[in-house]
Amino acid sequence: MSDAKVTLDDAQGVDTAKTLAADVLGRAATPTFRDELIDAGLLIPMGVDGLYGRSEVFESVVEGINNLVTRRGADQKAEVMRFPPAMNRTDFEDSEYLKSFPNLAGTIHSFCGGDREHHRLLKCLDEGEDWMENQKPTRAVLTPAACYPCYPVVAKRGPLPEEGRTIDVFSYCFRHEPSLDPARMQMFRMREYVRMGTPEQIVEFRAMWIERGKALIETLQLPHWIDLANDPFFGRGGKIVADSQRAQELKFELLIPIESEEKPTACLSFNYHMDHFGELWKFHTADGAVAHTGCVGFGMERTTLAMFRHHGLDVTQWPAGVREALWGQQ
Amino acid sequence: MSDAKVTLDDAQGVDTAKTLAADVLGRAATPTFRDELIDAGLLIPMGVDGLYGRSEVFESVVEGINNLVTRRGADQKAEVMRFPPAMNRTDFEDSEYLKSFPNLAGTIHSFCGGDREHHRLLKCLDEGEDWMENQKPTRAVLTPAACYPCYPVVAKRGPLPEEGRTIDVFSYCFRHEPSLDPARMQMFRMREYVRMGTPEQIVEFRAMWIERGKALIETLQLPHWIDLANDPFFGRGGKIVADSQRAQELKFELLIPIESEEKPTACLSFNYHMDHFGELWKFHTADGAVAHTGCVGFGMERTTLAMFRHHGLDVTQWPAGVREALWGQQ
Repeated sequence: MSDAKVTLDDAQGVDTAKTLAADVLGRAATPTFRDELIDAGLLIPMGVDGLYGRSEVFESVVEGINNLVTRRGADQKAEVMRFPPAMNRTDFEDSEYLKSFPNLAGTIHSFCGGDREHHRLLKCLDEGEDWMENQKPTRAVLTPAACYPCYPVVAKRGPLPEEGRTIDVFSYCFRHEPSLDPARMQMFRMREYVRMGTPEQIVEFRAMWIERGKALIETLQLPHWIDLANDPFFGRGGKIVADSQRAQELKFELLIPIESEEKPTACLSFNYHMDHFGELWKFHTADGAVAHTGCVGFGMERTTLAMFRHHGLDVTQWPAGVREALWGQQ
Repeated sequence: MSDAKVTLDDAQGVDTAKTLAADVLGRAATPTFRDELIDAGLLIPMGVDGLYGRSEVFESVVEGINNLVTRRGADQKAEVMRFPPAMNRTDFEDSEYLKSFPNLAGTIHSFCGGDREHHRLLKCLDEGEDWMENQKPTRAVLTPAACYPCYPVVAKRGPLPEEGRTIDVFSYCFRHEPSLDPARMQMFRMREYVRMGTPEQIVEFRAMWIERGKALIETLQLPHWIDLANDPFFGRGGKIVADSQRAQELKFELLIPIESEEKPTACLSFNYHMDHFGELWKFHTADGAVAHTGCVGFGMERTTLAMFRHHGLDVTQWPAGVREALWGQQ
């Protein structure tokens, strides 16, 4: 902080002072989109960056988009599975998520002491000291992506039928990336259709959902484009993996500008995992080959935020066609 | 284990062997209700006691009950707040939950190392060793009850209006109590109406919801009764607190037999917190007194399980009146 000397006798100094004051208030000098959402009561701050309560109106948009996805995917005859926002730690370890994104995962820990340790815990709390020493890892971790719990479940059923399988999942997910960008929450909901089968089945599924995803976002009258993408792999080795993912065209995203035009937000993603999950959980197609998998993911909060960004904070003023797509005849 | 010697040459030995075999399969010798739910595909085991996926049918019952609660509570003009399944650790510490139920809470931890620590983590994983040393507590903890995040939010708004406030919350909650009883999940959903105001307002609200709760469960045609109750306070001191809670009649439960008649399951609870939360988060009524609070909680999974227990696993065979209450005219 020694470089951040504030001098109030020039314009830059005033700006710096403004910024510092705004920081104190937890707000930028000019209201950000986040501020607007909070002021409108759509998001409720919870004192941790990336954790928010949602208002009834916000939820009605989430629900409207979710129902629209259901209607557009009805012909998929997907098996609906609804998992809680936590999964088996062993399955999570097997998933190799920790190889790629150790920094984003959330493990769940619980107090495992007796009366004596409890007294110490309360004393630490009272004195503002660290009370975590008796928190031990449980057998559960937070779900990092809605589809993760479904692979081991499907694998246990034996070989896939001829036509493969399509699973419909939806859950809260956790990623430890505290941010002031409302489109980067630590807890958010993801709806997915997951496809399991032969490489041809997955590639066809993904191509179809890229078209359907675009059509869905067009119905919602949002600006968007599709781009090749990579996941944010961790560490020095991460760049190599990311480059390889791009070279193989394994991930596409549907981008919508929310916080800025230059850095648009991935609201939908279209992923081809090749045989990664099939190998890990040993599941096979009808003819005995290792199954390939892919998925289309809908970021529910991100798409909802894009709606508020582009159609305004007052849903009663949204275009009639958008309102009808979300909530039917009114 | 030295006492658990198995001798196969007498009836007891055979029984023991059967039980051991059943343990290996994770099932009792006679199918339990849990087994039946899993065999029917309603619950999907996730390899951790108390964590389950839910089928489409299971979810349709949850949704039906939730909508019924909404209709019965429409006149409350409650403010809808939907929080994610995690909350601010500081608020959680302030709540004194750790004083009463340290063993049930779940804290969220994340990897905070760099490349070197990441290599060690992966090595530990490969070798089946503990990889948790670089998992550090985040600023978030899992929500222990749906209403917890709403008190600090409401407190920040200043004194309550004359008529008090009623908040409508719904979220996944976590409690670390691994169990084979499907009615004791580690992650489950709770819907609540939370009342904040004068003691008279809370007492009236609670009495009304005890009647409404009974009427709602009668509509669902489930056997039930109301009983005085206490929370499972931790440790040696816990019994004293529990006795005091009972003596003051602060908690009532609506019980439904699920696993057994002798140990019925609390599906709804009706709570008067007195000025506990008002004191902790410093919020006041219009005339400046510390606010009192209370809530009615609906255990969504428990009530759903009670439906399957009493009406059977095939929802198409449920009584017409029950089906109509859940899903309207069909």
